[in-house]
Amino acid sequence: MTAAGNQYSCPIPEAAGERVTLAHGEGGRLTRKLIAEHLLPALGNQILSSLGDAAALPNVAGPLAFTTDSFVVSPLFFPGGDIGTLAVYGTINDLAVSGARPRWISLSLIIEEGLPLAVLDRILQSIAMAAKVAQVEVVTGDTKVVPQGAVDKLFINTAGIGEIVAPAPPGPASLEVGDELIVTGPLGRHGIAILASRENMGFEPPPHSDCAPLTPAVSILREAKYPIRAMRDATRGGVAAVLHEWASQAPVTMQIDEAMLPVTAEVRGVCELLGLDPLHIANEGVMVIAVPAGWGRQVVSLLRTLEVAAQAAVIGQVISQKIAPVVVRRALGTDQPLDEPLGAPLPRIC
Amino acid sequence: MTAAGNQYSCPIPEAAGERVTLAHGEGGRLTRKLIAEHLLPALGNQILSSLGDAAALPNVAGPLAFTTDSFVVSPLFFPGGDIGTLAVYGTINDLAVSGARPRWISLSLIIEEGLPLAVLDRILQSIAMAAKVAQVEVVTGDTKVVPQGAVDKLFINTAGIGEIVAPAPPGPASLEVGDELIVTGPLGRHGIAILASRENMGFEPPPHSDCAPLTPAVSILREAKYPIRAMRDATRGGVAAVLHEWASQAPVTMQIDEAMLPVTAEVRGVCELLGLDPLHIANEGVMVIAVPAGWGRQVVSLLRTLEVAAQAAVIGQVISQKIAPVVVRRALGTDQPLDEPLGAPLPRIC
Repeated sequence: MTAAGNQYSCPIPEAAGERVTLAHGEGGRLTRKLIAEHLLPALGNQILSSLGDAAALPNVAGPLAFTTDSFVVSPLFFPGGDIGTLAVYGTINDLAVSGARPRWISLSLIIEEGLPLAVLDRILQSIAMAAKVAQVEVVTGDTKVVPQGAVDKLFINTAGIGEIVAPAPPGPASLEVGDELIVTGPLGRHGIAILASRENMGFEPPPHSDCAPLTPAVSILREAKYPIRAMRDATRGGVAAVLHEWASQAPVTMQIDEAMLPVTAEVRGVCELLGLDPLHIANEGVMVIAVPAGWGRQVVSLLRTLEVAAQAAVIGQVISQKIAPVVVRRALGTDQPLDEPLGAPLPRIC
Repeated sequence: MTAAGNQYSCPIPEAAGERVTLAHGEGGRLTRKLIAEHLLPALGNQILSSLGDAAALPNVAGPLAFTTDSFVVSPLFFPGGDIGTLAVYGTINDLAVSGARPRWISLSLIIEEGLPLAVLDRILQSIAMAAKVAQVEVVTGDTKVVPQGAVDKLFINTAGIGEIVAPAPPGPASLEVGDELIVTGPLGRHGIAILASRENMGFEPPPHSDCAPLTPAVSILREAKYPIRAMRDATRGGVAAVLHEWASQAPVTMQIDEAMLPVTAEVRGVCELLGLDPLHIANEGVMVIAVPAGWGRQVVSLLRTLEVAAQAAVIGQVISQKIAPVVVRRALGTDQPLDEPLGAPLPRIC
């Protein structure tokens, strides 16, 4: 667990007290009150507090990266994080793996009428804390309130802008036979945490999400100037989705060794119980990295100096193209094709 | 009506045919298919089509503006536009009134399982057309699909980045007694179009939304170098919300003359029928402008050379502070306070 993750184990606010009403989203007096009394105290900074139609950003000399993500996770709170932490780290991680230093994010809330204000406040606190950890500022926002039943409690969109401080890795089209494949942490923790908390599976302690910023891992690799072919956070669809996407862009096959996969005991237990494969389960603080042959061990050693990547591991390699784009060497020593995630094993995980 | 608006009078797609499934949002093969077969054909450009985690933007020399808006309008299609046109123009208008030239937008879709793909395609076409009219590119995006009942059909978030090509107007804090107040078009058309189409009020022809880009109006004023004190698009809460917000930032009162307000016959009719005030109804292609004393007529003449602002008008002036922050000179010649919109006369209008 990261230090940031531990903050979210406190009790979820009671659903008592004042609630969000439709009028809070109508652009009038109550909208201004919501902004002045709830949003600005949590998130205010010089740019956001000017409350213009658009934020005026300071000059930036170099090129920029721009990304967006909507978050629809259910439940809103889960062990290791909540929709607010997810909304910050999810977006800044997309910037980080693109070679950018995250700088500014937007925050757009779609709230169901009747949401307790205490719940909103708690999530705003999480957003503020995550933004501080990730060193980004929330500079512009929007609040909509919709009638009961038009949305399930709260959806959040964040868009993010980062400064491209180094050339992005050349990407999956550059993959070569012999390249080594690395993951920065144990697999499937986010998806299993959501599943366990949604289904009240009663594990004690409950499985925790890995929700965390990838910026430290990306920075340390950049500073070391290690050669990176491709880098991607393994969110929806898990590591399998990343490997399939990469394999679709180069005439190669990804070969994973099951014995080398870092998986926590709790994730392994739930996956065995439900017949799930950790390779297919979503992460929110793990990325897949491809490096040239021979660089794997060095890159993993460096990553392991970070708490968040203490269990980084080489999990396989790029081999010449076989019939299947991704294969897994199972315990018995045979290579089995790894399906691309097609269906929806776990909707609303992020 | 703008030329762009007329495009949306064609029939709404039948709800037959293939539908969006949860698997389309899971990051796997069907997500890639949705992107390759629906999103890219409608919206593809060099940056979007690279499909990275983040879009790499070309270098920009000057400062930037950044804004975001979520769109939850119901129904999805209405006379004069749809949620797609709204999602583009709403965001680029926020950039325009901030002195920026809109350049890039993000597009995040939250889709309810079961939405007909034909409906999605039609909305993507609207987005593409509006982006072309507004000269912006959709450069990054996200697609989430949630189970039936977790969202009503489709919500869209767009965030936008613009180049600040001229200093933004000094803003409402700079307002002085004698300043003239201008609107760029007839009031309340968007809100009334939504209301009429939602309630099946049976007007023939049905009231049309004013949904349109404000970029041409902002550009023409900038090029003429006319002095502008403040400029704001009058969306949720209508012109009343803008005037109240401005009055809260300067020790002055806004005085509006009811006889000078441009209002279409259809909006006037619906408002009289339902006891609504056009000043409180949302617009999606009208802004309020404050100019120094004596400049009103000249600014209005210039604006009227644009089709979208053919009915621009001076509607009042800034006067020394009275008890009420905003007053309206009604037909009988007396000044009555104008309420700040507080409640929610029309939820889900944008």
